[in-house]
Amino acid sequence: MTDLNPVSAACVADLPQDALREVAPRYLEEPRGRWLGQAGALVLPRTVEEVAQTIRAAAEHRVGVVPYGGGTGLVGGQVCPDGPAPIVLGLERMTATRAIYPEENVMVVESGAILSDIHDAAQEADRLFPLSIAAKGSARIGGLLSTNAGGVNVLRYGNARDLCLGVEAVLPDGSVWHGLKRLRKDNTGYDLRNLLIGAEGTLGVITAAALMLAPRPAEEGTALMVVEDPRAALALLALARAHAGEGVSAFELMSGQGLRFLAETMPDLRQPFAEPPDWLVLIDLGLARGLAPAGVLERIFEEALEAGLAHDGLIAQSEAQRHDFWELREQIPEANRLIGSVSSHDISVPLGAIPDFIARAGEAIARLGDFRVNCFGHLGDGNLHYNVFPASGHDRAEHLGARDTVKATVHDLVHGFGGSVSAEHGIGRLKVEDLERYGDPAKLAAMRAVKAALDPLGIMNPGAVLRG
Amino acid sequence: MTDLNPVSAACVADLPQDALREVAPRYLEEPRGRWLGQAGALVLPRTVEEVAQTIRAAAEHRVGVVPYGGGTGLVGGQVCPDGPAPIVLGLERMTATRAIYPEENVMVVESGAILSDIHDAAQEADRLFPLSIAAKGSARIGGLLSTNAGGVNVLRYGNARDLCLGVEAVLPDGSVWHGLKRLRKDNTGYDLRNLLIGAEGTLGVITAAALMLAPRPAEEGTALMVVEDPRAALALLALARAHAGEGVSAFELMSGQGLRFLAETMPDLRQPFAEPPDWLVLIDLGLARGLAPAGVLERIFEEALEAGLAHDGLIAQSEAQRHDFWELREQIPEANRLIGSVSSHDISVPLGAIPDFIARAGEAIARLGDFRVNCFGHLGDGNLHYNVFPASGHDRAEHLGARDTVKATVHDLVHGFGGSVSAEHGIGRLKVEDLERYGDPAKLAAMRAVKAALDPLGIMNPGAVLRG
Repeated sequence: MTDLNPVSAACVADLPQDALREVAPRYLEEPRGRWLGQAGALVLPRTVEEVAQTIRAAAEHRVGVVPYGGGTGLVGGQVCPDGPAPIVLGLERMTATRAIYPEENVMVVESGAILSDIHDAAQEADRLFPLSIAAKGSARIGGLLSTNAGGVNVLRYGNARDLCLGVEAVLPDGSVWHGLKRLRKDNTGYDLRNLLIGAEGTLGVITAAALMLAPRPAEEGTALMVVEDPRAALALLALARAHAGEGVSAFELMSGQGLRFLAETMPDLRQPFAEPPDWLVLIDLGLARGLAPAGVLERIFEEALEAGLAHDGLIAQSEAQRHDFWELREQIPEANRLIGSVSSHDISVPLGAIPDFIARAGEAIARLGDFRVNCFGHLGDGNLHYNVFPASGHDRAEHLGARDTVKATVHDLVHGFGGSVSAEHGIGRLKVEDLERYGDPAKLAAMRAVKAALDPLGIMNPGAVLRG
Repeated sequence: MTDLNPVSAACVADLPQDALREVAPRYLEEPRGRWLGQAGALVLPRTVEEVAQTIRAAAEHRVGVVPYGGGTGLVGGQVCPDGPAPIVLGLERMTATRAIYPEENVMVVESGAILSDIHDAAQEADRLFPLSIAAKGSARIGGLLSTNAGGVNVLRYGNARDLCLGVEAVLPDGSVWHGLKRLRKDNTGYDLRNLLIGAEGTLGVITAAALMLAPRPAEEGTALMVVEDPRAALALLALARAHAGEGVSAFELMSGQGLRFLAETMPDLRQPFAEPPDWLVLIDLGLARGLAPAGVLERIFEEALEAGLAHDGLIAQSEAQRHDFWELREQIPEANRLIGSVSSHDISVPLGAIPDFIARAGEAIARLGDFRVNCFGHLGDGNLHYNVFPASGHDRAEHLGARDTVKATVHDLVHGFGGSVSAEHGIGRLKVEDLERYGDPAKLAAMRAVKAALDPLGIMNPGAVLRG
């Protein structure tokens, strides 16, 4: 790879002039405030041709390009703090729904489309686009695909990559790959689609995608169940799937710590139980015709009671109550933000290792000092957000010196269990060292070879995923 | 890429001696008899280390390596007819189940494991490994992954790639990627797993895989329904999914021609209807507790009757009857083989385009001559096996001159509909020209760059997928 240049006047002259904009501060803000980005130019294209022109100009002038979707990524992949200031390429003006095929369960959208707008468009066609994350109101599909976003429905419907049948993309040489197939089966060559998905903009820019929709479940239901511990939660998951099969849309773990954080930061939010239990799960069912979710949830709860897996529970009796239960789960990240974590970890371990991991991580963190742990997340996927906070009355600022030790403690443990130190957020710039430390050497070498082959100039999102 | 060498005595000396075998003819047979392969040496390793030693020796001596699983591939990916005779690397002695985790729905197997043995092992653990194809009794999982096999349950459970959480693989430089993670979410870097899956052994050798299992459906049921035409079949699919959601495990299209071929070649096979209808579908349901499949199939059939989508049908009343219905579907490829096709096509088109494709392809083939068409397959995936046969009483040998025209006619039409000329069989050596003709140029360039980056010597399965 060659050294990159700053954006020169000659480079700007080669960019699509109608798409040039003044750089606004929001493009340079890392959501957790870790660092400030920089931009030599801001391009907001409206067409794939304008994206291609931008990439060709960047290649010609050896200038970095940082693709920017909704800006919600949590690992800094969209914000470049060092090296020559790059072109920031925002996809926010490419938001069209190009086509929708309800009878095929397919929708073709441009990559600037906001996730909740895609939800709405699917619903209008009586379909479901199942990808859902807390930031759905601002995250854009191009970024969600580039980071292979996960979220709450992975258990049933898979990650972002599993919901994408084809992409249109501009490759690092400025060529356009017209890969917007809407086929369930297509074995014509290497899986370039999955290579771009999750590459975080380092191998090209996704400009449009053919998304898989699902039939809307005929009826939905939600329950909160109090469990003794994570092991009981796992057994309850198996029980729920034995009853409802793929009908289990989400199975989320929450802790008493999470409920206490909600009570502390959002006193108006209705708490489900008089005393926050140590552990509880949110179970969401979406069933085909002929099965009433509330009835199925009751049977699951009764069997769970008998088996000693659950000892209290609430089954939503209305859509409003379902919304309230989900609100608890979805406000936890905001409560965490208000409390202020010492270190946050987006990790996964094999499902069977979850109880041991939680127990051993708790012991290890306790040995490091007086911390509060809010462990919650997508239990059905083995994906936990294991976040460490100062003791009550203390401030994160007191613990900044401990951050690296806390992080290494959690990540070493995860790695020892055969887990992942980035389950759904990606590598971005924040976890490049983690990837180097925990990644398999043969895989890393192959990744570097692929990067050098597809982006020999190193212009695409320089410094993200792999060191430049 | 450099020119490859034949297998020299020095190369043989560097191979794992315990794994060397005499070359038996079966390793050189293309299943449809298109060509004869060649082998300079046959290696049947028992460990990943022996695979790595073989690849290192091949790299050292610039010798090609052709990985060989069950030998059932239909596009010649496992049989190399020209260039210097390569090392054939058979995985048949690596068949261990390394671990099974029923509570995680995960199983770790070596790549020589036969698919039906994996089915049995999953069943013993009260789980389902859903990948299923007609050749399940001899196909091996390494080959099934390397070709991203499809089959009859893709509608519900996805292709082979969707059922694999991680792989162990030997890369073209002889390094071993220890990627046997069993995680549902792992966003640490490029998706090397999906790059190897479907690469048909041209980017490395998969030696073991962590497979996703599914809970066994509580109850299963199967029906045959007679439909007016493919458009009615599609509407019936939507109706079935509205009733049973993901519970629709398979939705297979068959034609009167297929039933007549079965009657002609397998007179002992019980025919379901007195007169073969023009079109029929096989619907397979696997449901969670509380829903009786036969009852759901009855309701689907009643609504289909009312809506004019179906006008006759049979719902299996026993496991034996289910087996009989499936036997019809699964014997069609063998009946085709006995009849002898002029040209066979494994194609997919967008679901909504299926009726038009079938109509226009029928017209185009009729213009070419007096042929019989057996069009059948995985309707729910948009994947049809569109096979063209001589008229009754005539032999394929009379039509060999028309084969290329027939193939081009079908493939051009598929391409025009935005379809794929290889839906589930892959490219192998038989479809290299098709890939060059119909593939997107930007994707092809990217594929060549990836191949050159990961296998700069061009030793891995030379001539498959991409021209050497």
